[in-house]
Amino acid sequence: MKQLEKITPQKEDFAKWYTDVIKNGDLMAYGATKGSIIFKPLSFGIWDNIRYNMDKEFKKNNIKNVYLPLLIPESLLQKEKDHLAGFNPELATVTEVGGKKLSEKYFIRPTSEVLFADLFKNEIESHNDLPILYNQWVNVLRWEKTTNPFLRTREFLWQEGHTMHANSLEAKDLTYSMLNVYKNFVEAYLAIPVLSGNKTEHEKFSGADFTLTIEAMMKDGKALQSGTSHYLGQNFTKAFGITFKNKNNEEEFAYGISFGISTRLLGALIMTHGDDRGIIIPPKIAPIQIDILEILANKDKHVHEVALEIFNKLSKKFSVSLDSSEKMPGFKAANSEIHGTPLRIEIGPKDTLKQQVILVRRDTLEKIICPLSSLEKTVKKLLIEIQNYLYLTAKDRLLNNFIEVTNYEEFKNAIQNGKWVIAPFEGTEEDEVKIKEETGASTRCIPFKSPITIKSKNCFYTGKKSNRIVVFARAY
Amino acid sequence: MKQLEKITPQKEDFAKWYTDVIKNGDLMAYGATKGSIIFKPLSFGIWDNIRYNMDKEFKKNNIKNVYLPLLIPESLLQKEKDHLAGFNPELATVTEVGGKKLSEKYFIRPTSEVLFADLFKNEIESHNDLPILYNQWVNVLRWEKTTNPFLRTREFLWQEGHTMHANSLEAKDLTYSMLNVYKNFVEAYLAIPVLSGNKTEHEKFSGADFTLTIEAMMKDGKALQSGTSHYLGQNFTKAFGITFKNKNNEEEFAYGISFGISTRLLGALIMTHGDDRGIIIPPKIAPIQIDILEILANKDKHVHEVALEIFNKLSKKFSVSLDSSEKMPGFKAANSEIHGTPLRIEIGPKDTLKQQVILVRRDTLEKIICPLSSLEKTVKKLLIEIQNYLYLTAKDRLLNNFIEVTNYEEFKNAIQNGKWVIAPFEGTEEDEVKIKEETGASTRCIPFKSPITIKSKNCFYTGKKSNRIVVFARAY
Repeated sequence: MKQLEKITPQKEDFAKWYTDVIKNGDLMAYGATKGSIIFKPLSFGIWDNIRYNMDKEFKKNNIKNVYLPLLIPESLLQKEKDHLAGFNPELATVTEVGGKKLSEKYFIRPTSEVLFADLFKNEIESHNDLPILYNQWVNVLRWEKTTNPFLRTREFLWQEGHTMHANSLEAKDLTYSMLNVYKNFVEAYLAIPVLSGNKTEHEKFSGADFTLTIEAMMKDGKALQSGTSHYLGQNFTKAFGITFKNKNNEEEFAYGISFGISTRLLGALIMTHGDDRGIIIPPKIAPIQIDILEILANKDKHVHEVALEIFNKLSKKFSVSLDSSEKMPGFKAANSEIHGTPLRIEIGPKDTLKQQVILVRRDTLEKIICPLSSLEKTVKKLLIEIQNYLYLTAKDRLLNNFIEVTNYEEFKNAIQNGKWVIAPFEGTEEDEVKIKEETGASTRCIPFKSPITIKSKNCFYTGKKSNRIVVFARAY
Repeated sequence: MKQLEKITPQKEDFAKWYTDVIKNGDLMAYGATKGSIIFKPLSFGIWDNIRYNMDKEFKKNNIKNVYLPLLIPESLLQKEKDHLAGFNPELATVTEVGGKKLSEKYFIRPTSEVLFADLFKNEIESHNDLPILYNQWVNVLRWEKTTNPFLRTREFLWQEGHTMHANSLEAKDLTYSMLNVYKNFVEAYLAIPVLSGNKTEHEKFSGADFTLTIEAMMKDGKALQSGTSHYLGQNFTKAFGITFKNKNNEEEFAYGISFGISTRLLGALIMTHGDDRGIIIPPKIAPIQIDILEILANKDKHVHEVALEIFNKLSKKFSVSLDSSEKMPGFKAANSEIHGTPLRIEIGPKDTLKQQVILVRRDTLEKIICPLSSLEKTVKKLLIEIQNYLYLTAKDRLLNNFIEVTNYEEFKNAIQNGKWVIAPFEGTEEDEVKIKEETGASTRCIPFKSPITIKSKNCFYTGKKSNRIVVFARAY
């Protein structure tokens, strides 16, 4: 039987805290291949809930699920040069089968733009065939040098949407509206507030005309890119010769976009809400929403009876787990907390006498005595409150962590203090590289709407006049 | 716009019929990698419904979903020799990343027994940790020489369940009950009747003590293995050193099983129910259950109004698609039929006048005039009838295609005529190989219960006394 281990406090060592909570919370195990992880039932359950709920949003947008092959023939990936260059160093390559060398190499997909392009080429003849709106939920591989569970692993799970359109405007509109779907979903379900905006040229997707992003702020102040939507324009359609007959009967290259979220979101969730007792899972996405703990059931057989009755009743409306084991009350509580269950119900001998239970919120740790008669109503209300509290707390933290700077010295200090810097910036791509080398901070986005009022009119780095407001932060 | 092409009749050329219907029915496209296919929205939708409903059955059995990595380090796969030998020739092997040779080779999983074994080793200490019941829905690769869409592709999608137990009896029980879950699911949802039984030693899974199977019969008489459940015993736990402290505080090797169904089931579904007009999807698993076709809506604007009203009403309870295009009625009907939608509703100008619609069953092609007032009730009833009709028709075909033989000549004739032969058989593994070479037929299973009464007491091949009843057939 597993013992709960001590969790390093967040303030002491955030990175150590992170690995402590994911291991103790039974979220993952390391895989046999270096840099890979195993998604255990709790983390996979969260991902499955993300998939299930996000799919509903996709359906509202008429996006259909498909499945394309894992392997990309070398010849196919070479067709779009920027795209290839961006991914080449990370490509896991199949060169043999059963010990025999293959005549062509195959790459394990790091993303599937070229595979979709190859499919679209055969599906599109006229404007009547457009738009095509596809999505797939799959595994992808990128052979990263440094890895971190959920945040950056060699293999990860994601969804990748790929669409084709008869005109640029429609494609651009969808690029924006899919980012908005992500923003709304991540905020409403994962209770993670995000900043949305454009990536700079330097940070955009290899092969895109522009990339939109949602950026989340972890409890240590670092940023985490949490979803991206790319306007690919005609880059892939020209490389692959994907044309259609438009309404004037002229051949035209189609317009494409792609968009994705991944299991990085699990890392975002853990580092946005977790505390020194473990992770905290927002109720709307929690595989288990309520833990029912029998307390000292060996001293009063009514305890088990009442617990079972509550379990059966609540199971009809919520996802509930019942702990009838003979472990000590303190262990049971800690066990529920470390696994991030948003609400727990404790039932002991005294409670059955008084026809009540004790409810404990995972977010505030507040204890609430609740009569059995109003339990269902109270549970429903509390789950909504917990969801809101998690979101609002994170939102406060995000908004309070922005700072405007007017020169590079201020910039360096702010980044050193874990702030997100926001300021006019006119630097080149080379400047971005240099700033990152010197401070560890990268451009996160050019926000659609600045979260604070910007006073300065000049670039903090070059001193040039500028109204291009950019957000910088250290990032995962 | 795609034109519907002529479908080769089943009787003329079954294999050609199969590729005709899957292409015309928009089920798949060929992938860029030879032997791989793209699952288009309709086929992926069926698979998604299989996953969704099967997952409910798994949950009832306390089986939890996880996700393990795609790649198997060479050293790991070498631990169980029988298993390795069975899969070795088909292993796609990653040897380099970004053009640089790796120090160890990695195999793309053909199945994940060794990865699960590696995980279980770390999760199990005492009998209190058992049973562990895991499952994953993933892609796997087996570099097959001959491929056939859905039936045998280099990459396919499947679920693989892997469990660990403290005693052999519990593990064996679950091996049988998971096969039963498959049997019930495939019969109830896919309307495919199956024969269940044991695989012979020769046909069992590499690394198993015994393998149970469900076998379905395609319209051309060939068998298709549709789901398997393997009792692995201590084979993998001994190879990997997976032990637990039993109740007497002694170290003991754990007992394992594994079980799986795959996207082959899509092939089974197509070849069990399809006819010369296209595929037929059983209502319980159909992504679209009802097509509503507007007929000559340009001649009467009420047609569109009524169709939309019906669409909105039926959408609340069924999965419905509305065809408001201006295509010809005959095209619309053929289009619905080729995509296998179980029921279609036709609404034309005459119908709106009479407050009625025409219902057309995809299975029997029967046309039913139905007053608008009783439409919902009738649709519900018909969908159940179609599901039952498909199952019973296939069941009749299965039962009528068995034949008992008493000698090898009779055997060869029966196989030649597409029959499933059932007879006592005491042949060796070598005999099985020889029979397959000579007739194309392999042992499908030793049925739990013979579908017909067997009179002979002697092996048809060796003449030896035998009560081991074996089923042979040509198979996909």
